Amino acid sequence: MKVARFSHGESISFGIVDEEEHELVVLKADPMFAGYDPTGERVPLAEAKLLAPVIPRSKVVAVGKNYHDHAAEMGGEAPAEPLLFLKPNTAVIGPGDSIVLPPESSQVEFEGELAVVIGRIARRVSEADAASVVFGYTIANDVTARDLQRSDGQWTRAKGFDTFCPLGPVIDTDLDLERGTIETSVNGERRQEARLADMVHSISAIIAYASNVFTLLPGDVILTGTPAGVGPITTGDTVEVSISGLGSLANPVRSA
Amino acid sequence: MKVARFSHGESISFGIVDEEEHELVVLKADPMFAGYDPTGERVPLAEAKLLAPVIPRSKVVAVGKNYHDHAAEMGGEAPAEPLLFLKPNTAVIGPGDSIVLPPESSQVEFEGELAVVIGRIARRVSEADAASVVFGYTIANDVTARDLQRSDGQWTRAKGFDTFCPLGPVIDTDLDLERGTIETSVNGERRQEARLADMVHSISAIIAYASNVFTLLPGDVILTGTPAGVGPITTGDTVEVSISGLGSLANPVRSA
Repeated sequence: MKVARFSHGESISFGIVDEEEHELVVLKADPMFAGYDPTGERVPLAEAKLLAPVIPRSKVVAVGKNYHDHAAEMGGEAPAEPLLFLKPNTAVIGPGDSIVLPPESSQVEFEGELAVVIGRIARRVSEADAASVVFGYTIANDVTARDLQRSDGQWTRAKGFDTFCPLGPVIDTDLDLERGTIETSVNGERRQEARLADMVHSISAIIAYASNVFTLLPGDVILTGTPAGVGPITTGDTVEVSISGLGSLANPVRSA
Repeated sequence: MKVARFSHGESISFGIVDEEEHELVVLKADPMFAGYDPTGERVPLAEAKLLAPVIPRSKVVAVGKNYHDHAAEMGGEAPAEPLLFLKPNTAVIGPGDSIVLPPESSQVEFEGELAVVIGRIARRVSEADAASVVFGYTIANDVTARDLQRSDGQWTRAKGFDTFCPLGPVIDTDLDLERGTIETSVNGERRQEARLADMVHSISAIIAYASNVFTLLPGDVILTGTPAGVGPITTGDTVEVSISGLGSLANPVRSA
């Protein structure tokens, strides 16, 4: 099932994308908290503006260097344990929203990633139980000011600017992780391509590890790392991250 | 004015501490959003359990190495610009709540700090305007797993465990920053002592700098760094951070 958050006219609603991907079946409330309770209304997908499908009330947790080839291009190896960092919820934008280049950086880069949306409170869950706390999956761009990441040491500023966490277009509650692929293109030219199965630390391992540190809350989002091929973006570019079965998350780039 | 969030019987309320510090003047709602609107009820301070005076809906921003003597004890110099990192809101606990030592660390340390509570949306505010976005001040303990801080490189895990962000006991809306002092004691023995005026980067400078990165929202909290004297805590200890005019934030320590 594909869950969307969208605006249509004056209102913001949640909906389910129908089988033909033509219409949104409008729901009474956020299905993460209220279940799947349709209003009876339908909205043509073409008339809706899709928004970030979730605004985390607590955390966006992210994992660094979780594909071997990306760890290598960053000049190192993938760490033995997941390397966690946080992005603030104020960085979240939706499909089509602009990534804004801050004047503090002269090297902003895209990082296409699979994002996990947590659906239940999770504290020290085992790898075996990790799937039970997942609400679904969406696409993320872990936008990074590479120059500030290098100079600051801590990644908070480099990864935390407003607009640096595009999420969307929908949350898929039944994504095929084993056969899934991820691709990122800039202005239509392919720049990243990987199999989701090539992650160093599996999604279950990441959830278990993160939940040993902080209680994960419904609506928390975990970005699972980017494959090789990251690179700079500039004003006028459009970055598009695609995951098989999940569609595409496209964002234009502009200066502040 | 001193704002408290507290439980009394079955209910959680906000209140103002009266002049004599004997009673709480109960408010209808969170004064940060609803102004000072009393219900007419009063609760004896001794009968109330004080809670963390704010639960950040978005971010706890923290600043590393913001006193010269602490930067020196960590083996370096204070950075030229504020060094930002994030703590998740799931780490927040209140006065009297236990700091829980996670099994992942064998060296958990206290860091007494002044915390700024943001009261207005702030985006790229100037140093001159920074005071206008402050709701008030409280006390924080930036609890840190020093061994993991060293081994992970990124500080997210070391600073992010549940219970690693005690806040309280109240928010003071008119703290005297120029003459204020901060002190931390463990089991009654003084371990840290500094003047708030000794910060490397001023509160206004930190707010301006942080708001250049992320939009600050009402309820966001900024921890302003710890002075020299940090050290380990173990099961059975009580850590108490005191700031002149703000009172004391005391937390017992226990293992998981």
